[in-house]
Amino acid sequence: MNRLNRQILLAERPDGPLELHHFRERTVEIGEPGPGQVLCRIALLSIDPANRAWMQGRTYRDQLSEGEVMAGFTLGEVIAGDLPPGTVVACEAGWQEYAVLPAAAVRPVTVRGELSHHLGAVGVNGLTAYFGLLEVGRPQPGETVVVSGAAGATGHLVGQLARLAGCRVVGIAGSADKIRLLTEQLGFDAAVNHRSTSLRRDLRAACPEGLDVYFDNVGGSVLETTLSLMNQRGRVVCCGAVSQYDTSNPAPGPRGVPGYLVSKSLRMEGFIVTDFHGLWPNAERRLARWLADGRLIALQDMVEGLYSAPAALIGLLKGDNVGKRIVRVGPDPR
Amino acid sequence: MNRLNRQILLAERPDGPLELHHFRERTVEIGEPGPGQVLCRIALLSIDPANRAWMQGRTYRDQLSEGEVMAGFTLGEVIAGDLPPGTVVACEAGWQEYAVLPAAAVRPVTVRGELSHHLGAVGVNGLTAYFGLLEVGRPQPGETVVVSGAAGATGHLVGQLARLAGCRVVGIAGSADKIRLLTEQLGFDAAVNHRSTSLRRDLRAACPEGLDVYFDNVGGSVLETTLSLMNQRGRVVCCGAVSQYDTSNPAPGPRGVPGYLVSKSLRMEGFIVTDFHGLWPNAERRLARWLADGRLIALQDMVEGLYSAPAALIGLLKGDNVGKRIVRVGPDPR
Repeated sequence: MNRLNRQILLAERPDGPLELHHFRERTVEIGEPGPGQVLCRIALLSIDPANRAWMQGRTYRDQLSEGEVMAGFTLGEVIAGDLPPGTVVACEAGWQEYAVLPAAAVRPVTVRGELSHHLGAVGVNGLTAYFGLLEVGRPQPGETVVVSGAAGATGHLVGQLARLAGCRVVGIAGSADKIRLLTEQLGFDAAVNHRSTSLRRDLRAACPEGLDVYFDNVGGSVLETTLSLMNQRGRVVCCGAVSQYDTSNPAPGPRGVPGYLVSKSLRMEGFIVTDFHGLWPNAERRLARWLADGRLIALQDMVEGLYSAPAALIGLLKGDNVGKRIVRVGPDPR
Repeated sequence: MNRLNRQILLAERPDGPLELHHFRERTVEIGEPGPGQVLCRIALLSIDPANRAWMQGRTYRDQLSEGEVMAGFTLGEVIAGDLPPGTVVACEAGWQEYAVLPAAAVRPVTVRGELSHHLGAVGVNGLTAYFGLLEVGRPQPGETVVVSGAAGATGHLVGQLARLAGCRVVGIAGSADKIRLLTEQLGFDAAVNHRSTSLRRDLRAACPEGLDVYFDNVGGSVLETTLSLMNQRGRVVCCGAVSQYDTSNPAPGPRGVPGYLVSKSLRMEGFIVTDFHGLWPNAERRLARWLADGRLIALQDMVEGLYSAPAALIGLLKGDNVGKRIVRVGPDPR
């Protein structure tokens, strides 16, 4: 067995946009699992906008420190320690090929369909879309649901779930190609470009009956625009704010907070997928079934090799990805 | 019978802080009620921060126009028309002594205790406090509830209801006198001054276990400060934004939206008391009982004469009032 573990560290906390020099490679010996631990070989690494937010301050997890292995969600297999070798597990191993983790911190995965979907459509993104839309947004059939970051890992699933729930679905994305993809392949009723100067007018035209649910992945000026178009008793699902992550100088908050909330009885609610932890198994089964029968399409954007991860994240923050971006770090466990 | 009706009109839409010259007095003949209408004599006029917001744009009601009778909530008695004379009614007659209104637009009131309480503690303010706190904020015993505008018409009731619900209660108000009143007479556990430069530190000290529910009457920088101190799964009840009403140039939104909502799973929710219309009778009975048995204290700030209304509203927007400000327009109906 190869005794070396390649890692990527956060070398320097970015002060503005993330760049390659903020990362550093290192090779160390693979660790030995102690009592209550497992050694995992990592197969797939999830690249997420939140990776950037973790560098900037305390979020739902502690801020990343300089010199630490870069954090990230992963899928791998147990090769030694307190779980049977070969067990496929979801874990937060970070940007490295091997990791020693507490056995209690890894989650055995019953693989259904493609392994990579367990990082995306039946993993964190699918669950985030499912609970954020259905439990936080609570759309009714016939309502209009708008989602930003609509071609992203979570957004493209949100739109399809809203369609399954009987809603009119409008996506907000950043390129003409993405807009075509959403309307022509994923069943969105309409899509608009957030880079257009006529975003507000375009969105209004795409939502002739107003917005009932807005699933927000981006924050900033897009959030501000949607607030003014929400219907009475509309709901804004606060899932992320990718427009504000790649900077240490976030913009002021959206105008209309709390004005529109008061005048239109709006609810804005943030959540994290672990808030619904007890409800995961049912949701995973449903997502897997919809994927299997083709009612849900999972877009993937696979990048090869651990050392591609920094560029993959930098590109993601600029909106390069279509669907779920994943780095293939090692061989498939099966 | 006196055939003249004195009125105050919105003469000019304010472009900055509200001043006396934005109003104009007029005397007209009292109207005759037609079929399906009633003629009311107004006894009491409610002075509310929302009166100013109505001048600035569309809220939950149409914007006020120049030359219109100034709008406002009132209590009066029917003197002619489609309801029995002497019926005490709550209505939106505006700033005048008499009004002809559709019978369907006035609400007969079963007077319990002081008539004026039906504009305040058992009227719109009491119901706003009750439903905003209990149905939107949903505090649990042992949680910490913070309310801004805490010495105002709604805020002083919110704090007392939170105390009845078993919470630690902290008020935010604008003067040392108000702070003393809250803690010494109304049972608030602590109160802090929003004009202090150490507001964040003071609030933090007053809430050693963080904020679970923040009942926001003011918006702006106070809202921004509280967001950073909210506990995981905290709730912000958006009731008003008085800091932003007396201007045509509202500040940008609070920083931390949507960031804190996402990272702390916060819910911010606006409402209007009519959202809970079907639940009013129960709430009114409870509020009246608590007032009668002294568990709830209603602060009132009575001003004499219709022509005092403009100065009463201007002062209210500066924070002059303590508790519910009411203008006595005519004799008590009973």
